[in-house]
Parts: sequence; C-alpha cells; structure tokens
Amino acid sequence: MSKPEDVRLYDAMSTTRAVRRLKPDPVPDDVLRRVLQAATWGPTGANVQPWRVIAVRDVAKKERLQQLYAGPWRRYAKGHQALLDSMPDGVRAAQERMLGAANYLAEHMHEAPVLLVFCFNPALMAITDAGLDRVSVVGGASVYPAVQNTLLACRAEGLGCTLTTLHCLSEGDVKEALAIPDEWGVCAVVPIGYPLLRGHGPISRNPVEKMAYADSWGTPLS
Amino acid sequence: MSKPEDVRLYDAMSTTRAVRRLKPDPVPDDVLRRVLQAATWGPTGANVQPWRVIAVRDVAKKERLQQLYAGPWRRYAKGHQALLDSMPDGVRAAQERMLGAANYLAEHMHEAPVLLVFCFNPALMAITDAGLDRVSVVGGASVYPAVQNTLLACRAEGLGCTLTTLHCLSEGDVKEALAIPDEWGVCAVVPIGYPLLRGHGPISRNPVEKMAYADSWGTPLS
Repeated sequence: MSKPEDVRLYDAMSTTRAVRRLKPDPVPDDVLRRVLQAATWGPTGANVQPWRVIAVRDVAKKERLQQLYAGPWRRYAKGHQALLDSMPDGVRAAQERMLGAANYLAEHMHEAPVLLVFCFNPALMAITDAGLDRVSVVGGASVYPAVQNTLLACRAEGLGCTLTTLHCLSEGDVKEALAIPDEWGVCAVVPIGYPLLRGHGPISRNPVEKMAYADSWGTPLS
Repeated sequence: MSKPEDVRLYDAMSTTRAVRRLKPDPVPDDVLRRVLQAATWGPTGANVQPWRVIAVRDVAKKERLQQLYAGPWRRYAKGHQALLDSMPDGVRAAQERMLGAANYLAEHMHEAPVLLVFCFNPALMAITDAGLDRVSVVGGASVYPAVQNTLLACRAEGLGCTLTTLHCLSEGDVKEALAIPDEWGVCAVVPIGYPLLRGHGPISRNPVEKMAYADSWGTPLS
C-alpha cells in the first residue's frame, strides 16, 4: 500500500467508497490526527469553521450510539427491502449487497474503533436558502466539505469509513449522550476503522454525461 | 507544476483556498471534464446522486448570474464592513483582504470562463433532520461532498475556484435563466478559471485541538 502522504488525489477520490464492515482494531493516534486535520482543511462560509467533531472511542458511548442508530435503521431497511422486491434483478443485486453491508453496520457500529460525530452551529452560518419555500441545505456547505475531506483522508490511511446521517432522527439523545450544547446540531456520524473485507476500491457512479449540462438544464456537455 | 494526476491528496487538501480573482482564459474541455468527473465520485445517500451541475460558459448567462450575485453581495458586504470596523487590527487585516477579493469576484464573476451551478432535488433525498426544530442541513450531505471534490480537482488542475451560495437568495431568477425544473433547487455556484494572482496555497484554519474533542463535547483529544 502507498504511504498516506503519497496517495494521489484522483486515485483517492475515484476509489473512496462506503466501507461498512470494520475491524475493531484501534486507530493509532497519529493516524486519527491526520484524518481530523484533513477535516479542518475543508472550506466554510467566511472561514468561520462552524463545526466540531467528537471522536468517540469510549465503549459505553459507542454502544449508545449504535442503539440510537439501529432502531431507525431497521425501520428504514424494512421499507427499502419492500422497494427492492419490485426492482429488476440487475439493479436489485447491487442494492441488496449494499443493504446487507448497511445491516451489518447497524448491528456492529459500536465495534468500530472510532465514531466521528460531526456537529454544527447554525447561528454561526449565513444560510442563504433559509427563507426559501423548500428544504434548506446551504448550512451543509460549511460542514460536509470537511466530512468529505475526512473520508478521503481515511481512504489514504487505509481506513474504512462511511457517511451516515440517521442519528439526526434521535439528535436529542445523541446530544445528551455526548454533552453537546443546545445550540449545536448533529449532522453526520462517520464510523472509521480498518476494513474487514476489501475496503475501498472501484465505485459505481453515473457518468459525467448524466450529471453535467452545458449552459442550460438538459443541454449535453459536448 | 505537477501533472494533475500526480498531485497528492494531502497536498491538495491543505492548499485548496478560495481563489476569487480569475483570468478569462478558457478552461480546456478535457480539464473541465476531469473536474466534473471528480464531482461524480462524491458520495450521496443510497448512491442516488440527487444533484446535477450546469457548466455555464455562455456570455449572456454568465452576465445574468453576475448581476444576480452582485446585488445581494453588496448588501452583505456593507454589513460585513461595519463589523470589520469594530475588530482588532490583526484580525481585521486578513478579513479586509478577503473582503477585497470577494468584492472583486462580485464585480467580475461573469469574466470567469466557467460558472458551475450545482442543483439538487430534495425529493430524491432522505433528509433525516427535516423534522427537527432547527434548520435542516442533511440534504447537503448528498451534494457538498461532490462540490468539495470539484474544488480539490480544480486545485490539482491549477484552476482557481471558490464555493459560493449567495445565488440561493435569487434562486427563482437563476432557475429561470438556466431552465432549471421546478422540483430542483440551486445549492452552490463555483466560478472556476486560471488564477490572476498566486492562486491556491497556504490556508488559515483552526488547529485540530480547537475543532476536535474526545468522547464528549469539550474534552481535549489527547
């Protein structure tokens, strides 16, 4: 494996996948520190950095976070399985593999050596879409770039990881468990650890032609 | 300069800054394509990829987007300048440099060769914090990782870039100008182009100690 500092950007971005089966082996302090430093490099509105991350390694706290995740996950998975049953075989197979890995994560989340809990403070953000007649997302522009840096750094360090947001459904309980102040919210939990299976690798994504347009919606990018 | 494919991840992440003064020189098609492909590699909830990007190079459309940006920017900058006047000299100097560059961007946005307009569809997202008694951000978890990949790819390609969200304040007009369907929103505009001055380089961020805790809010990460 390449040394983390030698991993190339395009190689990292094109092979960072959701890795949901993790070994319990600890993450060395220096490795964790490099991952967290990568997070700090993310851009934020007016460079305010209105986020914090709690690296949870305490066993009891990890178990609590697993409980808070597994309940909502089981409800979600049930609905998703019903959806899968109506899909064509080709699509269904890939989705079922993902669901299997996600089920594993839900039952074993506390076994990951570190759960990274990302918090944000909306009062420190200029949320330009807060007044629109649709759900707001712009607050995320000052925290998910940091989360993406985290995932890429994990890839460079050989650590599996995946971005989850299901803990928002029990945000009050998560905040209580980790003593998070009232004015802060929880926006992501990223379990990290060394992969049980293959880890990062090829990813399946839509091609540029499907995702990008030229000058106007729907106009192919030539 | 390194070839884009040789740029290392940690080098890219630690030197990707907001570059707001851009030359009008065109971005070659193959370069733009690599930047957009990097965007497609971003993770999204259930791998649905509920975002699209419009690469705006048309002069009239860029001028329209500049107009829609400059008005709100001038109002914002006025308030920000008042805030600066009350800051200690050391902090104020850096903030004033940023404000100067941001003023430049607002007046010259249409001169950038490409404006990347990121759109998202909330109906394709499972937004787990939509029911909370705080502003929602989780929709951003399925689009800003792609935006961050875009910024990092720009860095590797030697392209200046910066993440802006002020167009949300005139989302209806932006959607009309670019024929964006009703059910899609606009979540970021990233002007890209070759830097007029130094471009990417050293960034100023809080240290890990300030941003990361161990196990509970406020507990130092040893």
